[in-house]
Amino acid sequence: MILYDYFRSSAAYRVRIALNLKELDYQQQQVSLIDGEQRSAEHLARNPQGFIPALQDGDLLLTQSIAICEYLDERCPNISPFLPSSIDDRAKVRAMALLVACDIHPVNNLRMLKYLVSELGVSSEQKTDWYQHWIYQGFDALEQMLAESAGDFCFGNQVSLADISLVPQVYNAYRFDCDMSHYPNITRVNENCIQLAPFIKAHPDQQVTG
Amino acid sequence: MILYDYFRSSAAYRVRIALNLKELDYQQQQVSLIDGEQRSAEHLARNPQGFIPALQDGDLLLTQSIAICEYLDERCPNISPFLPSSIDDRAKVRAMALLVACDIHPVNNLRMLKYLVSELGVSSEQKTDWYQHWIYQGFDALEQMLAESAGDFCFGNQVSLADISLVPQVYNAYRFDCDMSHYPNITRVNENCIQLAPFIKAHPDQQVTG
Repeated sequence: MILYDYFRSSAAYRVRIALNLKELDYQQQQVSLIDGEQRSAEHLARNPQGFIPALQDGDLLLTQSIAICEYLDERCPNISPFLPSSIDDRAKVRAMALLVACDIHPVNNLRMLKYLVSELGVSSEQKTDWYQHWIYQGFDALEQMLAESAGDFCFGNQVSLADISLVPQVYNAYRFDCDMSHYPNITRVNENCIQLAPFIKAHPDQQVTG
Repeated sequence: MILYDYFRSSAAYRVRIALNLKELDYQQQQVSLIDGEQRSAEHLARNPQGFIPALQDGDLLLTQSIAICEYLDERCPNISPFLPSSIDDRAKVRAMALLVACDIHPVNNLRMLKYLVSELGVSSEQKTDWYQHWIYQGFDALEQMLAESAGDFCFGNQVSLADISLVPQVYNAYRFDCDMSHYPNITRVNENCIQLAPFIKAHPDQQVTG
């Protein structure tokens, strides 16, 4: 497998965690979001959205990080399953994963911040307020959901799709100086995750970016 | 089942389509986004995000429209399956559904537009530009994906999760006067969908809003 990757992309970070949890070998090819390589014809042929990540598995080219995680889970159901077995519980885990993947991350990603600055002329302070606002809105809700569902991880004591989605978002929250003191459950779950080898290996600081 | 619903919510519209495709009976309880009812204590107890929809199925309260659709598909796998049987194809359908659900809809929803106006003071024209910009970005990519995958519907000739996600977004595109002439595949698929009874019954104009 080849992962078209960028060290700081949250969506790519999710897929790195997922690949590591499934103990799969993969090559990483960096596509620099800062240099605009995601808009190259070469990358647009892989992913018409011009987004990172894309995952090549043989002839198959996969996009959308949550869809890729579901694919990996269906391909390798017996290693570190990403979803519980009960239908009710699967819905709860997917809801937490999608809260982050739909309602926090896309509104804060690089293309959004660029549009705010270049088209709407927002200040640096307004940009930070924007970023923090959507994290706080999402984390306020997620913290309540975790109060009911979390053990060591988002859902009980097994790593799930919700943790895969959450950990890169917490990384972003720290990077943008969010006050995490109101989120003891999120903080605890994140700390439990980032001590595990599949998460350590996936961390942005561990990637070869040259 | 009780669907906490709002006629114009795209995410609720998706779930209405999904419930209708599965031939399930459900009560609808309107939660007016315009009157701010989604921020009431009563609704926040159902969904800590304060979003529409939430679906109550017995004691289970479900949130996040795509997670709800996956739940309904797992509960009723034999009626109008939302995903193809092959793992590769499932990944493609999920990618199209998530392109809309992650990268178009959340950046254009009501909370976002309110923030743009109240916090960043954008003009009515800038707000429309914003709305159309993210639809065009997403639809440019989806149109290419459909050129490879679509038959009568987004993926071949069976209605799937991708159609459930797309149709409410096309409704929004028309409502915000987007130029759809560059999207022949999206337009064709949408027209095929909206002639089907489960989609007709789910349409915003068919809802009792009083």
